[in-house]
Amino acid sequence: MPDTISESAKERLLRIMRILEGEDRNFTSAELEALTGWPRDTIRKDISFLPKQIQAEGGEPENSDRSSAGTFSGYSSRILVSMIKEALGLNRCRTFCVVGLGRLGSAYLNLGPDALGEFELAAGFDTNVNRVEILVSPVPLYPAYKMGEVIQHLGIQIALLCVPAEAAQQAAEKLAAAGIRGILNFAPVIITVPAGITVRNVYVRDELLALSIKMNQEI
Amino acid sequence: MPDTISESAKERLLRIMRILEGEDRNFTSAELEALTGWPRDTIRKDISFLPKQIQAEGGEPENSDRSSAGTFSGYSSRILVSMIKEALGLNRCRTFCVVGLGRLGSAYLNLGPDALGEFELAAGFDTNVNRVEILVSPVPLYPAYKMGEVIQHLGIQIALLCVPAEAAQQAAEKLAAAGIRGILNFAPVIITVPAGITVRNVYVRDELLALSIKMNQEI
Repeated sequence: MPDTISESAKERLLRIMRILEGEDRNFTSAELEALTGWPRDTIRKDISFLPKQIQAEGGEPENSDRSSAGTFSGYSSRILVSMIKEALGLNRCRTFCVVGLGRLGSAYLNLGPDALGEFELAAGFDTNVNRVEILVSPVPLYPAYKMGEVIQHLGIQIALLCVPAEAAQQAAEKLAAAGIRGILNFAPVIITVPAGITVRNVYVRDELLALSIKMNQEI
Repeated sequence: MPDTISESAKERLLRIMRILEGEDRNFTSAELEALTGWPRDTIRKDISFLPKQIQAEGGEPENSDRSSAGTFSGYSSRILVSMIKEALGLNRCRTFCVVGLGRLGSAYLNLGPDALGEFELAAGFDTNVNRVEILVSPVPLYPAYKMGEVIQHLGIQIALLCVPAEAAQQAAEKLAAAGIRGILNFAPVIITVPAGITVRNVYVRDELLALSIKMNQEI
């Protein structure tokens, strides 16, 4: 992945990928502008960071909207999706585990493959051995003290952290020691992890704030 | 809110607000650059869209970093947070309800005020009357057929949609008829709503994708 793709360009490419998945036709930058709300020039520039294949096979010349030829047919959705996946490093499956099997964690245990896409659920963990034994789950559940062993054995890279707020920091430290590479933190607190581990916080309040801003815009 | 604030500027201002909440000191744009990763010029420009008060009281002159005076002390975190809230329309409390009281929904019922900030949980709904009667909850729970009445009576603006995928569209239509203004959709499907209702999808796969991109960057 070239270092030259900015974080915001990556976010836009990810959104374009999500919109075009499942589609099988060509999209012009004008259509992508209508679907995303971003200016077509920005979209064209973002796409220009992708490997050359898309420009060659389905590419759109810089000045297509002003061209009189009228033969340009847009970007192929399938090629574009595949190129974005490659550029963003999303073209391999990653396994994840759920840590903390209360209401939230056990809800995530039961998400089907449709909801997970390229991600594969491999295991669940809880400090409560009783809960581990009783819960019905599509994947094996383990007591928390086995985290190190199981995460290494199964090559699990990502953890969904669903423990209560007061247990989150300790659980994150255990995950770090177990060799996890990324944590999706659903506990409503800030966790501190060693360098080399990536954390993304999923706070309900942030989602409500983002929704509110969108609601205000649409008044 | 001036129309001139772009969506990406709003996202940046929201993130700055979240970083500065709870702080009570001055921050220079150089510090904000270090905390967010965005160029200080972009941050200064974003802040320039806010009401003049911040520029007058805690503002930073355009050329502060090159100034030899050395007396500029940065933006006051408290003023900046309050100005951003006002500009983004986040300075009033909004009430919300949880629709669908399975594992995910009942997890959200039990979030404390710390996790919810300016948002107030007012009610929960489920089509299963038995579940409504049995669940222990900090707020009143109602059978789904009372949605219209309760949402209007309590002035609920936002719904957290936590029903199974196959029930999401119908539930969204009921919410629309009940007068809801915004839906945070946790069901892993696309829902269609009438104009005037804002939807934000919270898909686990999208969070996993965004985490993966961040993990790739940090290699």
